[in-house]
Amino acid sequence: MEIAILIYDKLAALDAVGPYEVMRNVPGWDVRTVAKEVGEVRTEDGSLALVADYSLDQVMATDLLLVPGGRGSRGLMQDEQLLQWLRDVDRTTKWTTSVCTGSLLLGAAGLLQGKRATGNWLVLDPLREFGADPVGGRWVEDGKILTAAGVTAGIDMALHLVAVEAGPEVAQAVQLGLEYDPDPPFDSGSPEKAPAEIVAAVRAFAAANS
Amino acid sequence: MEIAILIYDKLAALDAVGPYEVMRNVPGWDVRTVAKEVGEVRTEDGSLALVADYSLDQVMATDLLLVPGGRGSRGLMQDEQLLQWLRDVDRTTKWTTSVCTGSLLLGAAGLLQGKRATGNWLVLDPLREFGADPVGGRWVEDGKILTAAGVTAGIDMALHLVAVEAGPEVAQAVQLGLEYDPDPPFDSGSPEKAPAEIVAAVRAFAAANS
Repeated sequence: MEIAILIYDKLAALDAVGPYEVMRNVPGWDVRTVAKEVGEVRTEDGSLALVADYSLDQVMATDLLLVPGGRGSRGLMQDEQLLQWLRDVDRTTKWTTSVCTGSLLLGAAGLLQGKRATGNWLVLDPLREFGADPVGGRWVEDGKILTAAGVTAGIDMALHLVAVEAGPEVAQAVQLGLEYDPDPPFDSGSPEKAPAEIVAAVRAFAAANS
Repeated sequence: MEIAILIYDKLAALDAVGPYEVMRNVPGWDVRTVAKEVGEVRTEDGSLALVADYSLDQVMATDLLLVPGGRGSRGLMQDEQLLQWLRDVDRTTKWTTSVCTGSLLLGAAGLLQGKRATGNWLVLDPLREFGADPVGGRWVEDGKILTAAGVTAGIDMALHLVAVEAGPEVAQAVQLGLEYDPDPPFDSGSPEKAPAEIVAAVRAFAAANS
């Protein structure tokens, strides 16, 4: 399985690195990082750089495409070169996937037309603009399109993909290797579970910083 | 809060990037990446490069030190320059932390003497060589030393740190921002929960690749 992870300036690193760590631990799966240009891209606040080993024109086909989210996705929604690349590569994939606001990029490329899809809980409604049917859930599968909710949901989505493609035993082994037995100190990970005042504060912060 | 994340060749990217994503989302917390030299380091299989913005001699003090794990930690356990840096920086920290096999580096530097500590479930016993008392748990706090279990446990540990230092409301808001409402497709994330044959397979794989 050949996997291409798109990275770009102002991405959320964990959107990419969560699924990366799951998938690169599967025997025979090869992961490549792709960006508009080879070299460094920086996270939302600039404090961490990841390196793209390939440019868009070097990766015209892949078995699995993963598009992470992050504040930088907004600017890319009008980037016709990138959107055309997403369309072209999607024609070659077995799976086209996204994490968090990465689904907005798939939508902007026209790949979510008539599809059920998810993404960051704060930006589900905008998926309608692209003809998608936004739904909740940790990840949503509609044909070969697999979209995950915010940031950490990419880890769960990737384990699902490993189970489907390599079998549940391999997925369980990878989960154990990553000691993914989550035990967050609070139960505040979704707007349904978090205290109302926390949800309001995060909404306000996102609105002020969007 | 000034945070320094040590990175090095053959690290496990998620060990570093999980806590990174939690901590960099806390208002007023600044995260820096540090390595023996400024520039790229690559993950265990070489398929992803992260960039260190600072070299060891540029970061001689920090409030919080985080040492991730990965196969590369083994070679560094005899690297006296790095071990001395860990000792020197530890004298300046409020928190000295590790994820996964990063605790072996803290141990090799002599920082776990007489401390309860944890790490990857496959390499808990070797912590005894460094005078530590290896215990289970998602993360273990002993004074200012905070050690997390394997890979993904760093996310839980970081949320705990945010709660202690910035308050539970901030930790809950960060958790919601990262939509950290984990829902893995299997319950296979610890040796106690995974099927016995999966545990045996992961043990055998680790032994063959260590």
